[in-house]
Order: sequence, then C-alpha cells, then structure tokens
Amino acid sequence: MPQISEKGINMPASPIRKLVPYADAAKEKGIKVYHLNIGQPDICSPQVALDAVKNFKEKIIEYGHSAGNLSYRQNLSKYYSKMGIDVSPDDILITTGGSEALVISLMVCLNPGDEVIVPEPFYTNYNSFAVQTGAKIVPIATTIESGFALPSIDEFENRITPKTKAILLCNPNNPTGYLYSKEELERLRDIVAKYDLFLISDEVYREFCYSGEKYHSCMDLKGIENNVILIDSTSKRYSMCGLRVGTLVTKNKEVVESMLHFCQSRLCAPILGQIAAEAALNTPPEYFREIHREYKERRDCLINGLNEIEGVVCPLPKGAFYTMAKLPVNNAEDFAKWMLNDFEYRKQTVMVAPGSGFYRTKNMGIDEIRIAYVLKKPDLINAVECIKYALKEYKEKNDL
Amino acid sequence: MPQISEKGINMPASPIRKLVPYADAAKEKGIKVYHLNIGQPDICSPQVALDAVKNFKEKIIEYGHSAGNLSYRQNLSKYYSKMGIDVSPDDILITTGGSEALVISLMVCLNPGDEVIVPEPFYTNYNSFAVQTGAKIVPIATTIESGFALPSIDEFENRITPKTKAILLCNPNNPTGYLYSKEELERLRDIVAKYDLFLISDEVYREFCYSGEKYHSCMDLKGIENNVILIDSTSKRYSMCGLRVGTLVTKNKEVVESMLHFCQSRLCAPILGQIAAEAALNTPPEYFREIHREYKERRDCLINGLNEIEGVVCPLPKGAFYTMAKLPVNNAEDFAKWMLNDFEYRKQTVMVAPGSGFYRTKNMGIDEIRIAYVLKKPDLINAVECIKYALKEYKEKNDL
Repeated sequence: MPQISEKGINMPASPIRKLVPYADAAKEKGIKVYHLNIGQPDICSPQVALDAVKNFKEKIIEYGHSAGNLSYRQNLSKYYSKMGIDVSPDDILITTGGSEALVISLMVCLNPGDEVIVPEPFYTNYNSFAVQTGAKIVPIATTIESGFALPSIDEFENRITPKTKAILLCNPNNPTGYLYSKEELERLRDIVAKYDLFLISDEVYREFCYSGEKYHSCMDLKGIENNVILIDSTSKRYSMCGLRVGTLVTKNKEVVESMLHFCQSRLCAPILGQIAAEAALNTPPEYFREIHREYKERRDCLINGLNEIEGVVCPLPKGAFYTMAKLPVNNAEDFAKWMLNDFEYRKQTVMVAPGSGFYRTKNMGIDEIRIAYVLKKPDLINAVECIKYALKEYKEKNDL
Repeated sequence: MPQISEKGINMPASPIRKLVPYADAAKEKGIKVYHLNIGQPDICSPQVALDAVKNFKEKIIEYGHSAGNLSYRQNLSKYYSKMGIDVSPDDILITTGGSEALVISLMVCLNPGDEVIVPEPFYTNYNSFAVQTGAKIVPIATTIESGFALPSIDEFENRITPKTKAILLCNPNNPTGYLYSKEELERLRDIVAKYDLFLISDEVYREFCYSGEKYHSCMDLKGIENNVILIDSTSKRYSMCGLRVGTLVTKNKEVVESMLHFCQSRLCAPILGQIAAEAALNTPPEYFREIHREYKERRDCLINGLNEIEGVVCPLPKGAFYTMAKLPVNNAEDFAKWMLNDFEYRKQTVMVAPGSGFYRTKNMGIDEIRIAYVLKKPDLINAVECIKYALKEYKEKNDL
C-alpha cells in the first residue's frame, strides 16, 4: 500500500466535530442535544437570495469568469463602499467560500516554512489551511481575563523573525467575539508598515456587532493599502453557509493578478451560489435589524446565564456569534465528552466545542469552551441550565 | 510592498485563456469569433437538474456534511455500480469540482518535490495544481503520429525515481481524445503494483466514447485497489461546468480519511450544486444518446474537415470532445494569434488553444493546436473553412 504524504498525515480532523459520535450516541438514547458547538445559524437565508435560485432561467450551467461574475463584483464594490471600504470590481475576486480565500492568501503571501502571526484563540481551520499551504502559524496569546484584547506591540515584535510574512486577524473575532478598536488596528498597522508584512483580515462577521462601537475594516488603514488582503464570505452574513461563496479583496495589483491565476486553475466559483450571493446584496435592511436584535438578545441571555453559574467566567462578546467561557473544571474536553456520554438533565444535554482546539499553544484553553449562540432563546436558556447542573454534578463526581 | 511567494510568482496564467484579449479585439472589429479554445459545451444541462434547483425548498442554505450529502453519495455509488465500478458511499467524497479533487489527491499522495508521471500532452491545469501542491510533474511523451497511445513500460520505468509517488492519467483523454485500452491499463497496473505507486485516474469524460470500444475504469484494475484514486466531475457529463461539483473515489481507507480532513477544512462542497448533481443522476438515457450522437457527428465533421486541409494531421479521437491537430506552420501560437489579430474570412475567424500549453517538455507541441468541438455542426464547418483559408494566407505571407 503506498504511503500518504506528510500533509496527508498531519491534516487535523475538525476539533469542532470531534465529539459528534458522542452526540450521536446521546441522541440514540433519546436525549435532546443542544448544538452549541458549530456556527450554523438557524436564521433563514434572505428571501431575495432563495428567490434568485428558484428563478434561475439559464438552460446551461456554464463556467463563469475565474475572477467571479462581473455584475456580482460590481455590485459587491458598491456594498463595500457603503461599508466605508472603497474598492473597485478589479480589486475583488470571488472565491469558493472564505476557506478558499484564506488558502489562496496563504499560498500567495507565504513560502512553505514562512510564518504568519495569529492572535489565539483562533478559528480552528486556520491550522488546516496552514498544513495545506506549508505556512507556520506563530500564535500570540490573548486572554479571557483581558477580554481577548489585542496584545501589545512588544508582544508582536517579540515574535517577528526573518521568516515572518503576515499577520492574520479575524475581526469581529471567531471564537472570542472580540471587536478590535480603531486604536488597536492602528497599532497593527504600524507593525505591518514597519516590517512590510501582509495583513490578512478575516472580516466575515462584519455585520454582527452589538456593542454600539463602530466596526473598522483593515482595508481602511492608511499607508498599508498594498499590504492588506480582506477575506469575506456570504456564509454568516446571509445565513447561507452551504453556498460556498466568499471574496478576496486587495488593492495590491500584483497580489490580485497572482490570485487570479489560482482562481483560473479551478475555473470558477460556484455559479448558482454566485447568483444567490449577488441577489442577497438586495437584502432589505429590516433583515439585518431583525437578526441583529435576535443575536443581541441571545448573546445577553447566554452570557448572563453563564456568568451566573458559580466559577464560570465569560466576557461579553461585542461581535460575531461566539463566546469563549472559562469553566471551573480541569479539562473542558473531558467535561464536554462527559456531558454527552454520562449526563442528562430532563432528557437534555449540550454539545460545546472544547476550547483547547482554538489554541495553538499547548495547555492553553484547556478549561475553556467555545459556544455558538445560534439557537433560539428558549433553547439557549435550557442549554445554560443543562450546563449549570452538569457542572454541579461533574464537580461532585470529581470531587473538585 | 511585501513580496509575494514563489508559488504566487510561478502560478501559471491559463494558457487556454491567453489569447482572450486578441479575441475580444477581433470582436470589437465586428468579426465573429468561433471559440474552439475552451471545453464549455453548448449542450443544455439535464432538465431534471435544472428543475431540482428551481424546486429548492429549504429556508436556510446550511452547511452539508464535509464528505458530501449522504443521499448523493448513496445514489452516486449506484451510478458507479451501473458503470461497473463497485464502490460504497464511504469510498466517495464530494468535492468542489474535479479541480479540488485533483488538488486534494496530489496533497495526500505527494510530499513537495515528489514526482508524478503524466503522459503529455495533458490538461493544462495539472501544471497549476502541481505548483499549488509542490508536486513535480514528470512528463512522458505521447505523439500525434502514434495517435497518442500509451508509451511502453520501458518509457515509464525510465522515469521512475525514488521520488516517484504517482501516475496521473486522464481517460478518455483531454486534450487528445484518446481512449486507453484494457491492455494499456493493465500495463499501467503492472507498473503501479511493481513500484507501489498511486494511480490518480481522471475519468471525467467517461460518458463520451464514440469508437464502440469499451471504456475501462482504473477502479476495475485488480490487485491495486488501494493504489487507485478516481477523479470525477459533473461538469462535462451533464454540461454543468459552473456547478463545481466533483468526486473523489478510492477504496484506500487511509486515503479517504485523510482526504476527509481536507474536506472538513473547507466545510462542505457547494450545496445547491450537490442538489442539482444528485438530481442529474436521474437524467434519462435519451439525453446521453442524443449528446453522444451529436458529439460523434461533430467529431467526424471536424476531423474530416481538418484532415482535408493540406498539411494538417489530426488523429480520430475516440472519446471526450477535444482533438489535437498538427498544422503546417512553425509556431501554432503565432498562427493562432495572427488568426485573431490580422485575419478574417467573410467577417469570421477562429480561436484555438496553442498546443504547446498542453506539453511540459520544451519545444513539444509548438506546431499543434487543441480544438474543443463544443459548437454546432454548421459553426464547426465554418470554423474549419476559416482555418483552411487562414493557413493558406498565413503560409503565403510567411513564405512557408
């Protein structure tokens, strides 16, 4: 039998899905499992987008332009300019989800072995993209105690080596829900400019900000226009995760041209998805007002509920729809498994993502969990109640 | 300005699209351009697939399973068993087009610097996938004179080094239209078994065979079940190139598991595409009979027409919908450009793909072109007439 490659061996399984077999077993025992582990929103996709799919009239589902449909890129540039991001259709490439946008960015910016600094905890699939592209992730810790604020300039500079080529930021942040302030982004800009790095800015949760503070895009940072690459996606914004339509945006012409060659190699992004995505740009503002209100209520209900549990620490997320919570346990992964395997409260239990999967540094996040608040409020209330009783029982059992 | 990576620099632009600006300029001059350069069929997608899209009823376009929708994989395994390929849904992963299937295969089978032997001429994007994954393509020449038959065992063995990890075959072949015989595939099997290589078999043109000879899948080869990876796609089979739905099939459990981790990193293949692709499995047999008849007529009309032109050599392709043709010119790329720039016949001209882009070995294919017979017969007849007059004029002009 031929041997598979090192990448093939090292490619991590999704840590978010690691506990799925335990959840399946719980369901088989007739237990209702609240899924707080994965960012699959229960919000309906915009009707305009669903209608565009239903009204698809072409007789041939043809290849589109490798850069993405021109009309979509034109309309996207208008969307961005409304968000204060001034870009032309030529600065935009349509990708197969934000995932492909990230993979292409790492390939174009980094040689194998080059380093990208990423504040941790971070989206777990960044690890997978690093394995695929040969990029080396250099984590820089943010802590639950400081609400996951951006580390100091010194902390960044301490990690810069001749191999450092990029900083990768997720803003608003998955998994912490942190929203970076203008001052923090300007600090980043200074480092990026000083060392002439790429700044890959994953802003797919742009529309989900709840604190009243303004969201600032890295595309707005002056003086580093040729350094910034914006990663975007329709998955969360329009609750269309299965569409697989994302975006790459950069003012760096050399980068766009090279990225286009990567796009040409896979011919085009999914056409049906692009049609839905373009139509979604006409989503009425009420849609966003409604989901904004809904997520904010869920967030408040979840965070308040969690912080009322003895020993649980959970900073208030300002954006996205995730939170990291510190639990009074030694090993949150063991606790999460135990909730699925050996616990039930009124025939219910909860599936969460163990926090350690979001950290690169060993032994970090082992008493943390990530929760996605993508369920309705009554379900969230039940889920928090489950966690409360589970923690009580688990502590007694383990004599904590 | 930060420097882009070596991959970013080396990623080739699509050679098939290289001449697009010249074609655009010709169109601006009011000249009709027959596009024989790209494999975008003009055949309608199956109505059952288009209807499935129109009837999409879900309110949320959710993530699907990373391996692909289970019902689709179940129905695909039935499709394959009808084709004589005995695989279970667990042996199947749904990918974002055949392109992603190829990239994942190269990443799982080869370390950077490892070698994959590919008969040339070959599909140009194999070069791009090699750059992306760090794989080194080792070409093995097939010639227009021998009708692009598989080279001898010796020729393969001469190219095998300790770095050789795989052979990549496209059958029926793009760009040559060659259909490999059972005897040829068994020769390949012997080499694969002897050196324990992976055999990546790109069989996306399976349904397009015109010679009456049986198509044989590499999945059928006995004794190398753990070596073979089948690449498949809905793009050509159902004329749904823009769907971006492909397939990876292998009986090698270790390979499937690793590939699934790659699939998890990009979450899922496009959901709307998977729905259309699953519905397309119910395409009535008349659809294939009709397009089979149509392509066969086109092929005969094109190849006869080309071979009637003095100095043109064009073997009869047995499958797919491409042919390589040798022209009586020194440089086919120059000729192709000239046809778009400086030539017209009754306000018409032709765009073809220069043959050299399909070869890896320098100076091979420079007097060849690839033609895709994806236009209706009357258009093909006009296009061949254009080529005939163009060759005459070009030869006179260049005193050939």
